[in-house]
Amino acid sequence: MASEIDGRVLALDIGGTKVGWAVLGCEDRVLDPRENTGASSGIKMFARGVMPTDAPKGGEDLARRVAELAAAQVEEHGCVGVAVASAGVVDPETGAIISATDTLPGWSGTPLGEILREATGQPVWIINDVHAHGLGEARLGAGRGSDVVLSIAVGTGIGGALIRSGEIDFGAHSLAGHFGHVHHHFGTGIPCSCGRAGHLEAFASGSGLATWYNHRSDEAHVANGAELRALADAGDHLALACFSESAYAVGEVLGSLANCVDPHVIVISGSVANKNGEDWWDNVRAGYAASAMDGVACVPLVGGELGDDAPLLGAYQNFMARTSVDTTEALS
Amino acid sequence: MASEIDGRVLALDIGGTKVGWAVLGCEDRVLDPRENTGASSGIKMFARGVMPTDAPKGGEDLARRVAELAAAQVEEHGCVGVAVASAGVVDPETGAIISATDTLPGWSGTPLGEILREATGQPVWIINDVHAHGLGEARLGAGRGSDVVLSIAVGTGIGGALIRSGEIDFGAHSLAGHFGHVHHHFGTGIPCSCGRAGHLEAFASGSGLATWYNHRSDEAHVANGAELRALADAGDHLALACFSESAYAVGEVLGSLANCVDPHVIVISGSVANKNGEDWWDNVRAGYAASAMDGVACVPLVGGELGDDAPLLGAYQNFMARTSVDTTEALS
Repeated sequence: MASEIDGRVLALDIGGTKVGWAVLGCEDRVLDPRENTGASSGIKMFARGVMPTDAPKGGEDLARRVAELAAAQVEEHGCVGVAVASAGVVDPETGAIISATDTLPGWSGTPLGEILREATGQPVWIINDVHAHGLGEARLGAGRGSDVVLSIAVGTGIGGALIRSGEIDFGAHSLAGHFGHVHHHFGTGIPCSCGRAGHLEAFASGSGLATWYNHRSDEAHVANGAELRALADAGDHLALACFSESAYAVGEVLGSLANCVDPHVIVISGSVANKNGEDWWDNVRAGYAASAMDGVACVPLVGGELGDDAPLLGAYQNFMARTSVDTTEALS
Repeated sequence: MASEIDGRVLALDIGGTKVGWAVLGCEDRVLDPRENTGASSGIKMFARGVMPTDAPKGGEDLARRVAELAAAQVEEHGCVGVAVASAGVVDPETGAIISATDTLPGWSGTPLGEILREATGQPVWIINDVHAHGLGEARLGAGRGSDVVLSIAVGTGIGGALIRSGEIDFGAHSLAGHFGHVHHHFGTGIPCSCGRAGHLEAFASGSGLATWYNHRSDEAHVANGAELRALADAGDHLALACFSESAYAVGEVLGSLANCVDPHVIVISGSVANKNGEDWWDNVRAGYAASAMDGVACVPLVGGELGDDAPLLGAYQNFMARTSVDTTEALS
């Protein structure tokens, strides 16, 4: 194992608006140490950067630019592998993009693992970005030390991951963790990004909150959750109600999920969770208390700690685990 | 491993009204072979019986009678171990009953594993009865051959289990699988057996259906799901609506859960599922289709195959796996 991973790894985080990257490793020589990589983890960040996704240019163009970026960084930093977190449903064995939403047109079907292995000549392990986020928080962030971690990101969309003993629960079709796609009657009739209707994401995510407000309002209309926040801060009663009621619904859904999967801790990240203050959290906790059974009533609901670095660090953790497993198997 | 399990095992299924038992093994000498133990499993049933739970007499009395039953059957049949499925939240390591509802007053806190080990002098492995049911269906019943199996029993209550690679997902507090305790607005304000309100079980289980009907009816009142079935068969519109609407809600919840845990197959057992015909199933499938994302839309929803034997066979499977693990560990 040591020979494979005793070096730097390029981590990529491919999202709808930007592609983040970082060179990570456990070496002593640190160019840009960042506290939020976990002081006790021993993981150092040697370099980092970002490029625009330019999603409208299509999946093929994006794959080409990601491959060029990867090849250049791997060469410059002498990386021994590439760890990727990508939007879309990802086959964690091959790194192929099984499907993707309209956020990344033409991304579905991209053989990303193959493309990056060819471009860099290094081992490549790819997982979904929300799965990576959860793995990062579970191993190095707010969930560290807990065996069963339910991670949920309430941002533009709502997604998450269940991590058991440090491993992502992928499910049968690499689809597990779509916690935003739980039925809740507040969303009745509101179309969801997945093609169904009435899901939590349709009214409680950043984009969903805007849709829900516009749906209920006779006057003002907003473009996104940030605009709705501004209205709420100005005292708009409906805007305030959208935030408090959707947060309560998030809590009810988390309580229901806790009854089903029984986690040690629930980690909540994402822009909606981060930018709406204690009122939002109080409503989440109230909804949770209304639905969670006695045995999980005391499960802590905590904020994520790693911010935007969570997917990069989760992808890196996945890479290390995969490389370790493979080497062990090869030796046995 | 062989020395431990190459013999007969006493399986017990401790429920609210009766304690079922069976002597199971893989030997050739069959006294009472039953087809539903799975023709290809090689598991034979040598003897079986049942005794009343007499729950009102309390947990101590029940534990004493179960211990007497176990000691007698282990001696008579030369059993090399005891496999138990019990109502209540069970610590699968020690076999202690962590908590139990009012169905079994005084059962909470019973050190059942300890009691049975002392009474029989044999290894004892205990799991929750709904977990055992799911494990039985996953390994030997309708879920056999599938890696990720979501099992749900819609009966007097609603519970289930998630089985991955033949192993029960216990969760952090042995509580995982409480699929009846998912929020659904049809249950708003209706008290649930868990102490919360508004859960699926509160209106879609056998007892919940009766409560829901009585809640909505100005005239007739029913005592249970069977009485409601009779009303529906006589053409009572409200009774029919309770069945169809609650089944649709069961489907919506299963669709939501499929988006979260991503199973290969969903196995539905229990009296409500078994006794309400194709209409009930059609509504479950319609609710599922309304909520399940594309990636899990084609997951089959199938009926359980093992009936009342599922918990006995699941407990037996758990015993075999535990004994195998322990022996392997002891040898290494």
